[in-house]
Amino acid sequence: MRKIDTAGKWIWYPDDFEIELSARFMMRRYERDVPIPPFWKQYSCWRNVKFVKKAVIDREERLSVTAEGIFNVTIDGAFVYGAGGEYVLPAGEHEVVVTVAAEKGLPAMKADGETFRSDGSWLVTCNDHKYLPAAFNDTLVSGDSTPNHVKLPTEVCMPLKEICRGDEKIYDFGRQLFAFVEIEGIESDAKCVRLYYGESEQEAFDTEGCELSAVFEVNGPSLLTDNPQAFRYLSVKGAAFRSVKALHEYLPQPRQATFRSSDPLLDEIFRTSCYTLQLTTREFIIDGIKRDRWVWSGDAYQGYLMDYYCFFDCDVVRRTMIGLFGREPFDLHINHIMDYTFYWIMGFCDYYRYTKDRAFAERNFSKAVSALEYCISRTDENGLMQGKEGDWVFIDWAENLDNTGEVCFEQMLYAVSLRMTAQLADVLGKEEEAKRYGALYADVTQKLEWFWDEKRGAYIHSFKNGKPDNLVLRYANIFAILYDLCTPERQKRIVKSVLESSDVQAITTPYMRFYELAALMKMGEKQYVMEEIRSYWGGMLREGATTFWETYDSRQTGDEKYAMYGRRYGKSLCHTWGAGPVYLLGKYITGLEPDGKGGFTVTPDKTDLEWFTATVPFLEGEVTVSVRPEGVSVRSTHVGGVLVWKGKRYRVIAGKETSVTDTKEDKICSSI
Amino acid sequence: MRKIDTAGKWIWYPDDFEIELSARFMMRRYERDVPIPPFWKQYSCWRNVKFVKKAVIDREERLSVTAEGIFNVTIDGAFVYGAGGEYVLPAGEHEVVVTVAAEKGLPAMKADGETFRSDGSWLVTCNDHKYLPAAFNDTLVSGDSTPNHVKLPTEVCMPLKEICRGDEKIYDFGRQLFAFVEIEGIESDAKCVRLYYGESEQEAFDTEGCELSAVFEVNGPSLLTDNPQAFRYLSVKGAAFRSVKALHEYLPQPRQATFRSSDPLLDEIFRTSCYTLQLTTREFIIDGIKRDRWVWSGDAYQGYLMDYYCFFDCDVVRRTMIGLFGREPFDLHINHIMDYTFYWIMGFCDYYRYTKDRAFAERNFSKAVSALEYCISRTDENGLMQGKEGDWVFIDWAENLDNTGEVCFEQMLYAVSLRMTAQLADVLGKEEEAKRYGALYADVTQKLEWFWDEKRGAYIHSFKNGKPDNLVLRYANIFAILYDLCTPERQKRIVKSVLESSDVQAITTPYMRFYELAALMKMGEKQYVMEEIRSYWGGMLREGATTFWETYDSRQTGDEKYAMYGRRYGKSLCHTWGAGPVYLLGKYITGLEPDGKGGFTVTPDKTDLEWFTATVPFLEGEVTVSVRPEGVSVRSTHVGGVLVWKGKRYRVIAGKETSVTDTKEDKICSSI
Repeated sequence: MRKIDTAGKWIWYPDDFEIELSARFMMRRYERDVPIPPFWKQYSCWRNVKFVKKAVIDREERLSVTAEGIFNVTIDGAFVYGAGGEYVLPAGEHEVVVTVAAEKGLPAMKADGETFRSDGSWLVTCNDHKYLPAAFNDTLVSGDSTPNHVKLPTEVCMPLKEICRGDEKIYDFGRQLFAFVEIEGIESDAKCVRLYYGESEQEAFDTEGCELSAVFEVNGPSLLTDNPQAFRYLSVKGAAFRSVKALHEYLPQPRQATFRSSDPLLDEIFRTSCYTLQLTTREFIIDGIKRDRWVWSGDAYQGYLMDYYCFFDCDVVRRTMIGLFGREPFDLHINHIMDYTFYWIMGFCDYYRYTKDRAFAERNFSKAVSALEYCISRTDENGLMQGKEGDWVFIDWAENLDNTGEVCFEQMLYAVSLRMTAQLADVLGKEEEAKRYGALYADVTQKLEWFWDEKRGAYIHSFKNGKPDNLVLRYANIFAILYDLCTPERQKRIVKSVLESSDVQAITTPYMRFYELAALMKMGEKQYVMEEIRSYWGGMLREGATTFWETYDSRQTGDEKYAMYGRRYGKSLCHTWGAGPVYLLGKYITGLEPDGKGGFTVTPDKTDLEWFTATVPFLEGEVTVSVRPEGVSVRSTHVGGVLVWKGKRYRVIAGKETSVTDTKEDKICSSI
Repeated sequence: MRKIDTAGKWIWYPDDFEIELSARFMMRRYERDVPIPPFWKQYSCWRNVKFVKKAVIDREERLSVTAEGIFNVTIDGAFVYGAGGEYVLPAGEHEVVVTVAAEKGLPAMKADGETFRSDGSWLVTCNDHKYLPAAFNDTLVSGDSTPNHVKLPTEVCMPLKEICRGDEKIYDFGRQLFAFVEIEGIESDAKCVRLYYGESEQEAFDTEGCELSAVFEVNGPSLLTDNPQAFRYLSVKGAAFRSVKALHEYLPQPRQATFRSSDPLLDEIFRTSCYTLQLTTREFIIDGIKRDRWVWSGDAYQGYLMDYYCFFDCDVVRRTMIGLFGREPFDLHINHIMDYTFYWIMGFCDYYRYTKDRAFAERNFSKAVSALEYCISRTDENGLMQGKEGDWVFIDWAENLDNTGEVCFEQMLYAVSLRMTAQLADVLGKEEEAKRYGALYADVTQKLEWFWDEKRGAYIHSFKNGKPDNLVLRYANIFAILYDLCTPERQKRIVKSVLESSDVQAITTPYMRFYELAALMKMGEKQYVMEEIRSYWGGMLREGATTFWETYDSRQTGDEKYAMYGRRYGKSLCHTWGAGPVYLLGKYITGLEPDGKGGFTVTPDKTDLEWFTATVPFLEGEVTVSVRPEGVSVRSTHVGGVLVWKGKRYRVIAGKETSVTDTKEDKICSSI
């Protein structure tokens, strides 16, 4: 007898899952006992949807339907009463319609059956007369998880040691966690347990000042918290108990980049970057696990780039973009920040470049168009972007940054967004958009020249009421290099006149530092960047970091280093943008780059390293690059690879090792 | 010591309460055990909102905040930790911000305090940078009700008798109810109780065919159902028990029109109309309490008109309109029906005419504009409305009604919507809209001439592909009269050539019959309408109706009269549009009409009645009209009234009786 898989998937209306999950996820941020929901608009899924499938079956089929929400089923146009979710379809052609409506939460359904089992072959409508293929998610909604109750796996972690200061005692779990706390053997007369979480030892001891604290009523001998929190250290007060443990909640990643080299510090920086990124790559790619525990488009954009060089988890990139975007019409900048709308567009276009996921690009292209048209509708008389009322023009945390007027940096993001959308439109055969955005790109690019100060060899910061501020900052100059917004000659000049100039205000956040280091890498200043990685990220490791921080200044000592935003422990010690080295090393040292046709080129550069061996996931496969003093070898499970070594190109055959030995005149691999 | 009211109201973002309540309410329809959510889009409230109030207080104030959803409070920009909802404001100027976010449902808050107690003086934003006055609802959200748990009062009703057929027994509660069922003294070994509801005796006996049935597990000696249902008769099976009662859920109405006359049948028709309307006027004005238990714009439009002559409950009209409209952008016809979008616009403009509620009209004017612009964007090359894919062009339930092409009836609704919106725009000082819609109205009105068949003295039904169908139906011709879309002369001609013609297909639903009878009343054919009311509505009373039906045909006998839509008891026996007499008698016999300036005229006409005394609520007051053989008297609690009697106008002084005695030459009231 043939065995048939009759188990259906949970299915729903496209985007609804991400929108709903995101809105709920974003409400779980706390500061001490105070919940901090986001201060920008959150969207909702549709409330009532209709799933349809038509098919011919050659024998009787039993269909079992369950739903989250109330539901009804029509078979060939007629309601089935008294069915209790069990239906029988005789052989023949049938149309099954399942209507699901949820008073609260996401309406979703699951049908087990042979032909009619629920999957992407069902169509669904939000009752707007349009039918789309139903959506599902094999990563987050399988096993015990349902669309409205997504559960990530947990790992039990016991405290590694206890740290005492006088009478006070805290538990050290040895590394940053994002975990529930379970306390067992609580004394029977205890009333409540108070938890004080610490990313640092100091924070956990400081019960008055720690960012996260919570009080739980005791209702028995054990206690399990319901909202996982970020901590390495934990203080438990209010009751005696037998044991405490952490249930570390994480998103499993089947693949993870590796980097081993002649420099153990660099290896440790790479590993710590990966672990940092793993903690912030969850239901969505968030900024930090303690704070803000939100999805910010600027942070996420860097997260996508890091992800491509660390996990190549496409699903989390898609989830994050959809959750961030919310529901059309697009009538507010993403996260209220002008730059963040552009990063959304750039991330969306980038996603196609890395993944060639044409279906996703097509399905969501209208979102990029909506976002771009919103921006276009807000340009000034020069066709340039200026912050309007309510718009937050952010760029970076930096003192005295006056972002009013026509800010060069924003025009550059605008230009890049136009260019990338035009290029994607071209690929998708959307001629009108390709033309419109291509022309606008040309126009904005030309106007970027207004900001160029030829004498100083730099882009100035802004025009205010038509007057140049003549202020040279790094931001625009970095992006001119990174996104090729000027000639290579000019890029070289900018390196000298801006990036290497101590007269230009230094960047302090790893957020913008990420772009600056990438620009320097791109311009060949790799040796400098390697040193910088060792000193900045190595500095954090010397401070005992097990994940990388929101910001770091080696000059800060004592408690000062954990303070931010005027709060003693305001600084997040596990921040996506702290994981930059995974990208910098993957892209510029390992040198992997998608070729735009579904293949890749790999241009390794060991700089000052004696040797390194790195594995980077790429699409469904992975690429391993080994550089040794005597040469290079590449092994890929993915087809269409090219090794670039010392200016020559070598074809990388999937599954075979491609080696080039420098010392021999006769290469074992011929160049192409 | 002065006593200060410190109790705040529950407040929320405008429209959110109605949108959320409506979506939930609409999901409570069942057919037997099958839930039937609506097949058009349902909207959601915003998830995270921010309430703000700034004020100066001259002494310390205690503020107590509660919310539905998670919330935080900032005072003068700083979060307050560990407050447990209790805050102290020292004397001085303060800004209090309460952020509320709801994972599910409506985010709402309530603050008790002196100056800072929550009310409409707080501003609220859905985080789109715009701040609006917070909304509240004193009718539905007070006492035990909260924004997410609205409870209407209930009245205990015992069955009046038991009816037996063989071994079968049902309970008769004596009148239509919308009620929960409570069963007490259930035998201890019972497993489940099965309820079969009947609007008719037959239905309750027919356990296989009744529209509403439900099975409840027994978990103790008593049982209370959780979803009120429509019934007069009830069958209880599955267990022995001591007693059964109904908890009739209703919206209290402080005022209700009365009508007493020399014709007891008419009085009974009026009372039954009011009771019918009371049952369907609830959280919203729904179509019927058994079925569909939904808000349909066409049904609601008639409900509004009836309401003005029955309860003058403005709040339920506003709630219904807001709930129906949902959330902008307007991208689908209301209820998917083209006519129903127009009825929404007409109802909205009418609301202002009846209530002079300028604040509501201003706040929601953009909705009428959005709806109208949506229609305009869908006009054909002639500037006329045609059904596009997905649009349902309804008009009425009637056999062989082909509503494709340019249907005259729809152009008339379009024209009326344009005219009414232009007029309202004019009142609100919105010149651009007044001009635009005024010009379009003129254009569409001119094109209505294409449909006029001078020879037959009638508007034809439609043009299909540019060709007239030459079909004469009543619909367009009724509306031409009712909304003055042609000259009085032509209107008179239509009465003869269409309304009084037996060659033109008769109207069978009380829905369109409502407009037909109103048109006949308007044209002075009152005697005919009175007879019609007696025979049609009187016919239902003779059938034992305690509420008026969805449709009635005196020729139907036996069970046939309860069947509809191919189902044995498909017909709703308590339907809003069945309550038409309350409007027809109020508007054309009592003759009350708002004068468009906040006052009213009353033009009583007793037709064939010897006498009548009617009280009609108007705005905050009421108007009582008595007509006797010897003359007329009017008493009003509302200012600005004018009595029109035998062609003369008399001022009605509020609080005084205005009488005109026909037999005397010297009137006690002088004409104006």
